[in-house]
Amino acid sequence: MRELTVDLGDRSYPIYIGSGVLEDIAAYFDRHKLSKISPLLVVTDSSVAAHHLSPVMERLQRGGYPAVSYVVPAGEASKSLAQLEGIVTAALEAGLDRKSAIIALGGGVVGDLAGFAAASFMRGIRFVQIPTTILAHDSSVGGKVGVNHPMAKNIIGAFHQPELVLYDTSTLLTLPIREVRAGLSEMIKHGLIWDEAFVAWIDEHAGELLSLDEKALEYGLYEGCKVKAIVVSQDEHENGLRAILNLGHTLGHALEAVAGYGELLHGEAISIGMVGAAKLAEDFGYASHIYTETKRIFEKFGLPVTIPSQLNTDRIIDAMMHDKKFKEGAMVYIVPTAIGKVEIRKDVTVEQIRKIIAHLKEDI
Amino acid sequence: MRELTVDLGDRSYPIYIGSGVLEDIAAYFDRHKLSKISPLLVVTDSSVAAHHLSPVMERLQRGGYPAVSYVVPAGEASKSLAQLEGIVTAALEAGLDRKSAIIALGGGVVGDLAGFAAASFMRGIRFVQIPTTILAHDSSVGGKVGVNHPMAKNIIGAFHQPELVLYDTSTLLTLPIREVRAGLSEMIKHGLIWDEAFVAWIDEHAGELLSLDEKALEYGLYEGCKVKAIVVSQDEHENGLRAILNLGHTLGHALEAVAGYGELLHGEAISIGMVGAAKLAEDFGYASHIYTETKRIFEKFGLPVTIPSQLNTDRIIDAMMHDKKFKEGAMVYIVPTAIGKVEIRKDVTVEQIRKIIAHLKEDI
Repeated sequence: MRELTVDLGDRSYPIYIGSGVLEDIAAYFDRHKLSKISPLLVVTDSSVAAHHLSPVMERLQRGGYPAVSYVVPAGEASKSLAQLEGIVTAALEAGLDRKSAIIALGGGVVGDLAGFAAASFMRGIRFVQIPTTILAHDSSVGGKVGVNHPMAKNIIGAFHQPELVLYDTSTLLTLPIREVRAGLSEMIKHGLIWDEAFVAWIDEHAGELLSLDEKALEYGLYEGCKVKAIVVSQDEHENGLRAILNLGHTLGHALEAVAGYGELLHGEAISIGMVGAAKLAEDFGYASHIYTETKRIFEKFGLPVTIPSQLNTDRIIDAMMHDKKFKEGAMVYIVPTAIGKVEIRKDVTVEQIRKIIAHLKEDI
Repeated sequence: MRELTVDLGDRSYPIYIGSGVLEDIAAYFDRHKLSKISPLLVVTDSSVAAHHLSPVMERLQRGGYPAVSYVVPAGEASKSLAQLEGIVTAALEAGLDRKSAIIALGGGVVGDLAGFAAASFMRGIRFVQIPTTILAHDSSVGGKVGVNHPMAKNIIGAFHQPELVLYDTSTLLTLPIREVRAGLSEMIKHGLIWDEAFVAWIDEHAGELLSLDEKALEYGLYEGCKVKAIVVSQDEHENGLRAILNLGHTLGHALEAVAGYGELLHGEAISIGMVGAAKLAEDFGYASHIYTETKRIFEKFGLPVTIPSQLNTDRIIDAMMHDKKFKEGAMVYIVPTAIGKVEIRKDVTVEQIRKIIAHLKEDI
């Protein structure tokens, strides 16, 4: 088991990563003084519920925690104001109060949705993350929570830090391979923005990671969370540095929106986005091996590196204009300058974006 | 014109109160460096729009501010997730970005709704309050924003402080008398919890206040905002002292919910609630003139002091149990100990509440 602290002053919290940590959920809750009087609400989705809900509820009840659960349909469509209202209804019916906590048991969708419910229910109650996907190693660090609007992803939300994160690698063993690949996309991103040695390690251990070797997962998730924790602790509310975590995301989010949420997995969309950013680096005069290396590693993990030709270029660009990263008329874009290093640019033009999209559609 | 600062460290902000301050809206926005590149969204309701929207929009545009507006139906029913979604749609269509601001032009409903939109759009953008009711002097200080759920009021929300508050007493001159009375109810509350001399001033100036004398309003709103600002600056997130602002609210919110939102105005509901709390003070052994004085002053302002007999007692108590002020099985109740002084009690029993409700129904 590895433990990592996300250092945010009085909002600091630990992440416990390892095989079987969920078996000790009640002991972890004891250590972090969750209330045994005020009810807990465990939010999960229909897929995760089938595998993990019963044991979690049983362990909580055995440990003396009054807990109820609320299950949303699996998939990005649940990240909605309608589901937020559903969670609040469940919370009120179960009698949650200000000392209660909401527990997110699931991937990024559940974490973002349940986290926003915790952030806004009674203007903020305690929150625990139990990620059950590889992708969620990203969203479980940093406190960004929220829901989608039909016109834009993650546009309604808050910053709300969890009390603790319990990351049990054994919950990852039932993930379908497409989700494994997509989750590893964010892990690769954490290497690409910060740590060349971590990229090299990921590259070498592609086989173990894709076959869900728990020791490899524990190390990779720990290192990925660590990069994110370092960045977030320096810039909690994204006034500067934190923007580098958006490598591949400006284009990636637009691709997700235009393809229709859920068509392209988030990790797949940002894989294409990161390859696009690497191509843009070439445009800005950085070594062209950034592009070839970036493309090679994503291909090695079976991730898409081209834009499906049926996605309309103008609609992609329009979606990018609606992105949160568009500020006072200028696009904020993260561009690699080497493997393991990026810069924040505000001088990327729509013409350049159009060229990159054309390139990614032609797959030259 | 009077100016007051709400002291909250790096989230401190000024309140400008006076006749005609809204004529200089562009100059105030210049002083507070609102963006002239990123669009502003003015949120208001259908009643306020008829009187005040055009002049505000014209002055903003003349001052060089790109502004669009969004009008919600007047009334408590607009404090909903559906209207939040509507505001976000308008914000996206108008191209708001992280440097944009949302301007709440209206009463408490508009302030709470637009404020929550500002708190959650892109995880938080700037926010300006332009209260157009007397009641809103309460909600415009302290940063509590949010929407209702069919089962509970203000249950989904955030703490989000405005950049500035522009309080133009001339906008109050078109208020219907029932709303004037209900707004003054919160002003009286600020006296009752903190400042016996202010209660005496309100008592003496009832005639001027009810006839909307602008000088009296300016002073009363300034003093009311000042009490709230002092309390909030000592306890921004309601960990302790801030709870005293809820005098009359535990019962008041329940009455609003059971009567059906909008039936009983908020100020009317808390008038009854405060009289109930004063009766409870008697129960706890405090001087019975607290009750007679409290009742007398609310009656002088034409506010209700009894519970409509058709409101079911069990439903009222049930609604109180769902209130945010109910924590780990104990009711947090604000009880006066003198005129201008209150205490926070956690030992109020359901039996006592039942007795108070019976008393307020019988109007002894």
